[in-house]
Parts: sequence; C-alpha cells; structure tokens
Amino acid sequence: MPTADEIFKDFREHSIAEFFKKNRQMLGYAGMVRSLVTVVHEYITNSLDACEEAGILPDINVKVGQIAENRYSVTVRDNGPGIPKKYIGKALAMILSGTKFHRHLQQRGQQGIGASGCTLFSQVTTGKPVHVKSYTSTAAFECNLSIDTIHNKPIVSNVIDIDRDGTGIVVEGEFAGVKYENSEHGILEYVKRTALANPQVQISFTDPLGKEYIFVRSSEKRSERPKATKPHPLGLSINDLLELAHTSESRKLSSFMIESLARTTPNKIEEMQKICSFDLGKDPKQLTWPEAEELVKAVQSVKWIAPDSASVTSIGADQIKIALRSILNPEFISVVERKPQVFKGGIPFVVEVGIAYGGGSGRQVEDTQMASIMRFANRVPLMFDSGSCAITEAVRGIQWKRYNLDIDTQPISVFVNISSVYIPYAGVGKEAIAQEDEIVDEIKLALMEAARSMQRYVRGRQIKSIEENKYKTIMRYTKQLATDLEELTSTDEKEIEERLEKLIAKHYPKLKQGEESAQGREGSSAA
Amino acid sequence: MPTADEIFKDFREHSIAEFFKKNRQMLGYAGMVRSLVTVVHEYITNSLDACEEAGILPDINVKVGQIAENRYSVTVRDNGPGIPKKYIGKALAMILSGTKFHRHLQQRGQQGIGASGCTLFSQVTTGKPVHVKSYTSTAAFECNLSIDTIHNKPIVSNVIDIDRDGTGIVVEGEFAGVKYENSEHGILEYVKRTALANPQVQISFTDPLGKEYIFVRSSEKRSERPKATKPHPLGLSINDLLELAHTSESRKLSSFMIESLARTTPNKIEEMQKICSFDLGKDPKQLTWPEAEELVKAVQSVKWIAPDSASVTSIGADQIKIALRSILNPEFISVVERKPQVFKGGIPFVVEVGIAYGGGSGRQVEDTQMASIMRFANRVPLMFDSGSCAITEAVRGIQWKRYNLDIDTQPISVFVNISSVYIPYAGVGKEAIAQEDEIVDEIKLALMEAARSMQRYVRGRQIKSIEENKYKTIMRYTKQLATDLEELTSTDEKEIEERLEKLIAKHYPKLKQGEESAQGREGSSAA
Repeated sequence: MPTADEIFKDFREHSIAEFFKKNRQMLGYAGMVRSLVTVVHEYITNSLDACEEAGILPDINVKVGQIAENRYSVTVRDNGPGIPKKYIGKALAMILSGTKFHRHLQQRGQQGIGASGCTLFSQVTTGKPVHVKSYTSTAAFECNLSIDTIHNKPIVSNVIDIDRDGTGIVVEGEFAGVKYENSEHGILEYVKRTALANPQVQISFTDPLGKEYIFVRSSEKRSERPKATKPHPLGLSINDLLELAHTSESRKLSSFMIESLARTTPNKIEEMQKICSFDLGKDPKQLTWPEAEELVKAVQSVKWIAPDSASVTSIGADQIKIALRSILNPEFISVVERKPQVFKGGIPFVVEVGIAYGGGSGRQVEDTQMASIMRFANRVPLMFDSGSCAITEAVRGIQWKRYNLDIDTQPISVFVNISSVYIPYAGVGKEAIAQEDEIVDEIKLALMEAARSMQRYVRGRQIKSIEENKYKTIMRYTKQLATDLEELTSTDEKEIEERLEKLIAKHYPKLKQGEESAQGREGSSAA
Repeated sequence: MPTADEIFKDFREHSIAEFFKKNRQMLGYAGMVRSLVTVVHEYITNSLDACEEAGILPDINVKVGQIAENRYSVTVRDNGPGIPKKYIGKALAMILSGTKFHRHLQQRGQQGIGASGCTLFSQVTTGKPVHVKSYTSTAAFECNLSIDTIHNKPIVSNVIDIDRDGTGIVVEGEFAGVKYENSEHGILEYVKRTALANPQVQISFTDPLGKEYIFVRSSEKRSERPKATKPHPLGLSINDLLELAHTSESRKLSSFMIESLARTTPNKIEEMQKICSFDLGKDPKQLTWPEAEELVKAVQSVKWIAPDSASVTSIGADQIKIALRSILNPEFISVVERKPQVFKGGIPFVVEVGIAYGGGSGRQVEDTQMASIMRFANRVPLMFDSGSCAITEAVRGIQWKRYNLDIDTQPISVFVNISSVYIPYAGVGKEAIAQEDEIVDEIKLALMEAARSMQRYVRGRQIKSIEENKYKTIMRYTKQLATDLEELTSTDEKEIEERLEKLIAKHYPKLKQGEESAQGREGSSAA
C-alpha cells in the first residue's frame, strides 16, 4: 500500500485552459446547435463592446458556412477600433485575460473568456488555429492564433502586415461537432434579437445556404460610452473592502473611502467613526479583517444616498419601440422603462420591457400560436437555460388573464432587458439571470405596467370581435331571410337582401371605423 | 474617443483563483445551506479518496459548530495517509492542482478544486486561514493555509512539528454566509447517504447542538483500490489522440497505440493500417491533425472488444443491501447490480440500484408520505440540482404503477449509484449527471428490474390489506350481532360473540401467519 509520499509523487498543477478543455460545457459548448450559437455570441459581444468603448456606430457582418457534416466556419467582421499586435494573442488566445475583469463598467463581456474560449473550441474540435485580421488606426496585420493549453499561453503565428483599410477586426474560425439550425435557439434568431436590443447596430447575417439577412440600423443615436463608477459602500463585502483598501495608495483609510467609494463624504466618515472602535485615519494597507468587518457593519447602520445610476445605460423606451416596430411590425406596442433600482443594497440596475401584439409577434410551434419571450442582459440576447432565469420566473408569475392577455395562445412578444454593471448570472454560460428577489419583483412591476396599458387595446379589440361575430351571425341569416320573404311577399329577393344589409350596417357603424383605427396604435410610459 | 492602443492599456491577466472568487456559485457556494454542505462534501470526498488510495478502512469525524448567526466552523478528521509537508499548500490552497487530474482512475474528486475551494471560501467570507494537522507515516505537523488569489499560490504559515499519532489529517475552517439546516438537503442527510453508499466507512457527525450521530461500519470489506486503466480507442477524440501521441515516448505510432491504449493489438493495427493512407509506423510526435482524424475514423470502422470494466469499482448488491437494512430498516429491499456498460463508445460505467419499502424509507413532507430518491456518483451523494440529473430523469421515466408502486404516496427509498472513471457531470458543481441517453436507459433498466422483484411483495401486501379490511369490517359487526341475537335467542351475548369470533377467525387464517412473515423479506438479483 502506498504512503502519502508515494501518492503525492503524482502531484501536478493544471492550467485554466486545461480545465475548460475538460469542462467546455461550462462555457456554453454543450450540444451541437448551442455550441455554434455560443461562438457567434462571443464574437458579436466582443465587437459590440469594442465599438461602444471606442464610440463607433457598430457595423457587423456574420457569415456561417458549412464545410462538412457538423463542421462549419464562422466569420465575424466589425468596424471597431481593432486590436493592437502586442495584445492580439492574449486578447483572443489566453483564457482569463482582458480589459474588463476589474473595472466597474457595464459591458457585455466581463471575464476575459469569450473569444479565447472560441479559439480553444476550434482547436480541440478541428486542430486548426483561428485566423484574424486586425485594423487599428495606426497599423494593420493578420495572423493565426491558438492556445498552448498546458500553460494557457497564446501561440501567435504567420504574422503578416497588411494594407490599412479603416478599423476593425475580421475573425475566422472552423468548428466541428456543431450544427446550424434555423430555430428559436438558432443564430438567425440570435442576430435578430441583437438587432432588436441594439437599434444603433447595423448587422448582417449570411447563413450556410448563402442567404443574407440584413437588420438595418434603426437609430443613429450612438449608444453612450459606459462610464466606470466607484462601488457603492452598501454593495461591498468585507473581502471586497479589504482588497480595495490594501491596494489603495491613499495614506488614510478615510480618504481612501472618500476617493474610491461612491456617496462617501467626510460627513459620512464622521458618522461611521462614531460607531467604529478603531481610528478611520489609519493606513488602509493595515486594515485587518475584524476592523473591516466592523466597518461594513458601520456602513450598514448609516443612511446612504442610493448609488448613481449613471453607470447603467439602458436602451430607452423610444429606441425599443422603434426597434420592435421595425422588426416585428406589430399591431400594438407597449413599452415601459423603469427607474434605476438597487439590488443587494449597492448595485444599481434598470429594467426595460416591451410587449408587442400581432404582426410578426409571438411564435408558431407547429400549428399553435404562442408568446415569444425575449430575454436580454445588457442588451445581449439570452437564448438558453430559460427555465432558471429571473426573467422567465417573472413572466410566469404574472396573471396575464387579468390583463386580457394570454401568453399561451396569443401572438405576443415579451421583451425584457436588464442593464447593470454587475449582472448576477446563474452560471458561467451567462444564459440565465439569478433569481434575486429584488430583480424578479422589479421585472414583474415593469411587465404589469406594460400589460395594463396593453389591456386597453386588447379589451377594445375583444369588444370589437364580439360585435363582429354578432354582425357576421346576423349577416349569415340575411340570405335565407330574403329568400323566405320573397316567397311570402313576392318582393324580389335581391332587393330585400340589400335593404336588410343596410338596416344591419346602421346598427353596427363602429365596426367600419374600428377596422381602420386598430392598426398602428401604441402605448408607452416611462416610469 | 479612445483608440485601440489606449483601450488595451487596461489589459490584465487574472488567475483562476480570482475567477472562482467572482464565480463561486460555480463551485457549489450558492445559497447558505448548500454552501455549508459543499464544504463538508469536499472534505469527506477528499478523505474517502485518500483512504481508498492508501488501502485504509476509513474512519471520519465531522463536526459543525455555530459561531454566530450564519457563521459556522467545520472540522473534519480522517485516518487517511496524511499529506506531506511539501504538498500541503498546493493540495489545500491552490486551485487546479492535485494528483487526480490526468489519471484514468475512478475517484470521487477529479479536478483539484474541492478542498482549495473551501480554503478560498473561508478566506473571502471570514478572512481567516484554514487550520490543518497532518500525520503521515514519517512526520506530523500543523499549519495555517490561505490563498494568494492574485497569483493562485498557497500561503502556508505557522508551520509547527507536532507529535506523531497514527496517520490522517484534521482540517478546521470557519465560514460565514452559511447556515446549518436539518433537512433533506442538509449535512446530516449527506453524511447518512455517504454511509449508505460506503458501507466500509465509519463516520460520525456532531451537529451544532452537540448531538452526535454515528453511522457504524457495516462492512469490513475494504473497498478495492481504484486501478488506473488505459483509455479505450473508441473513447478518444481526435484531440485526445493527438495529445497522447505527442507526449508519448514510443518511437512508432503503432507501438504507442499498443502500449498506451486498451484492447489495441498488433492485429488491430494491421486492420487499421489497411484503411489509413499514412504509415502507422511513423513517429507519434509527428502525427498531424488530418492524420489523427483519419486514424479516429479507422478506429471507428474496425471491431473492438468492449473496454475492461476492471477500472470501475461498484459497491456491490450485497453491500448495498446490508447498508440499506442497517440505516433504513425497511420491510423489503430489492437491489440490482447491472453488468458494466459503455457510453460514448469507450467509457465503461456500472449502475446499481436499490429500492427499499417501509421502515425508515421515504420521507415525510409535512403530513404527506413521499418517496426519497438518493442519487450517487462514484458513491458520492448528489444533494442538489436534481432536476437536471440523469437519475431523476430515469426515475421519472418509470411507470411505477405498473409495478404496483407509487413514488408519490408510498414509503419508498430509491437508491441509484453510477460508477465510472469518467462521470459526465452536468456542471462543475458536480451535483447532477448529464442526461446521456445510454446512461438514462441503463438506469431505467436497472430500476425496472428492481421494481419487478419488489412488485411480488407489494402485490402480496395489497391482497393481505384487502383481507384485513374485510376481517375488520366483519369484526366491527360482531358486537352488534351478538347483542341482537341475545334478544332473539336469550343466549348470553358474550357466548355468542366468542363463537362468532372463532367462526370468523377460521375463515381468515392467513392473516395471523402473514403478520409474522411480512417483516424482513428481501429480493435481489445481480444481472
């Protein structure tokens, strides 16, 4: 039998790249259809973030080509700022590296995994590197990228300088064990929803049969550059506070707090000093855990102004309306943009919802009409894991019948977007939002508000429909009655029929008007 | 607006420890009750693996103490081989390092995350290090452990040599944001289930109120040391094959395959050579992706002997029976151990199921009796995420009524264990088994087999219950009938009643016998 020393001879360390190679389902590479959507999602997300940060109106082209059974190429081209040669390897071929991990900034990507995950996925399924062309404002080059998974280091090869031509990148990869499908969970739907939630984006998609779909920019309004914000004291754990303090360059804990945290004034420091047993003028680098624990308790016992929501950029009710109208062409739209709220005490978020009725709204499942629930987090469509998502939970929690709506049978599209610097995802796959009570409740309130304004229209429509049915029923008898009356009175059947029709039309005058005004109504409110 | 060069100034790399600190729900630290169970689970799992590897009959003590609201200490002591001083830091305070990652060995832990995850969790919730005593066969020491999360490096402090006293380790940690609960998902249930699936283990648990529960060893049979096996060719992806070939020390691809892969004989090589366009005698280090692709196709087109299941160690029908009887004391047990099967072509697995009826089986939810489904993977209880697990899927897929069983109302415990070198978990949390068709089907077959043998007993019991009801109904009228007959015949009421009772007892003789033989019946089969 082996001793501890013998057993531990096999001891080894492993890289995060090795880990994700073994656990790639954690990154969304599970199932053939989903894996391909994940690739497209990662590249589009990166492009949108890059354009936003550089203040560029995004223009994105996505192309998926079939190479063999379950083997496809994906090419994504954007007009973003490009990636400098120095960073290209780490940006696209090193897991857990990027510009976003440590910033308090509302962006789609956050963890520095996405695009490098695609490189890893291409590599382990086809053995091929990913090919990139990068155009920055000062240089342009192309190269191949793969990952040394043992060390999680980028391998950059075949670097060639090329002619400059605007800015942006073109990424092209080949992936196996994947499948293109034109379904509710497919790439076309993903691209369409991206266009819906990002009206400032021009995006085109060419499917494996060569068919091109163009979603034109429906708004020239540049989306705001996300602003980095200071964390709000109420959102900090003891550990967060300690880490910030220990890396601070301030000489006093008090000045560190005033400079690095939101809403923290000298007055607040004074208030907290009265509660804390130690001197808040101490060196922040010397802050101990028990002191930090005391400080967090002090933070929780004084009153704070809610966090500034300037860090949260929403789509905006008008933009959502424009987008829903241009893509779904519905009979009626109701959009609600709520005021920023806060969860876990210090993290601001904004909920926006839209309900569209009729036109291209809803979805057909075989012969049945159903509602379509479109979930978004920071404008990124969430396509999978709907069962565990706060949005689904909220939609299910609404008594739709109360608003004369029925999400099981009517042509309804429900659009929900949550914006926050810190979206609490339920998993790394980032396809579902954790069911925090404060978030679920806020989505419900927004949905109820939108449903109420939708209700007026739907009720009008139902009354109209009842009248229409009466009208039709009576009209159905007109012909028979005319024939019978002809026999009785010897008056011409045609004449009687015409008179009867005129008589009926007199009693249902609203119907004619209704037919015209029903189209294109809309309701909206910004709470 | 910033250029690419300006944007990328913020570029940073992050360690896996930083990543899991931000995403700790991925390691099972989600929810207060679950987080505490996760800590206990990780330590017990490590202890069991260590004992098994060293050939020691495990003796484990778990103690949970409450320190404050939502703040607990966890102490786990085992009699395993101990951890050498040289490795203590990496083993317990460095994410993704361990002895198990690269071996083809059936063990509970696999990824080198578990215990280091506990250290990280303690640190970010309480700021405290974890304290360890380690006793190996040659040395003994204690120390404190924490993680430098920025670099994912262990911090070992206060190392003191102590007196030797057998072998084993004692780990003690303090955790906040957690909660002890005595529920179906709690620690007591976890420990009980661990005892159920590991009859060779002696395990005690002391709860926060100081109450001690001892689950005595019900079998002295040492569990077999897991054997490392060569991977079966049918289980290899192109990428797997390439990596093995490139790290091989063989001079020829053919000899590499014969030496490193299971079931690969010179005859098989010859067969595959006929299909492959390149020379299998080439240097394995020079194998290219297209060649590996060809080789994998060749592997799939020749016939193979199924993988050796020696690498899979199951619990065994007899052991399961002993354990279920000693812990649940049921009226009836039906246990089925199936033959090893293969999924994805090359990965062997074994399914064992047990159904227990009556006694302590099932569970009470308020006033309602329900079945309890106990899921295990390599004998580790799976307590959460049951909805997405292959075992739940299989249990739901059985038409229990067909076997005169009803999992919604009867006192039934369903025990399912899956053993494999490679358990396909649905997530890193490792609380659910992926719903691979081959696995779900195999569990269903095992359950149906066990249910069939259970059925005989249940049917007998139901017939008995009908007769009992008849007997009781008649007996209920005896008293009244005796009184009435006394009036009619002037015979003494008592006398009539006695005679009537004798008469009835003559017609229902089976009931008396039945009452005695119903206890302790059992059925089992090993397919």
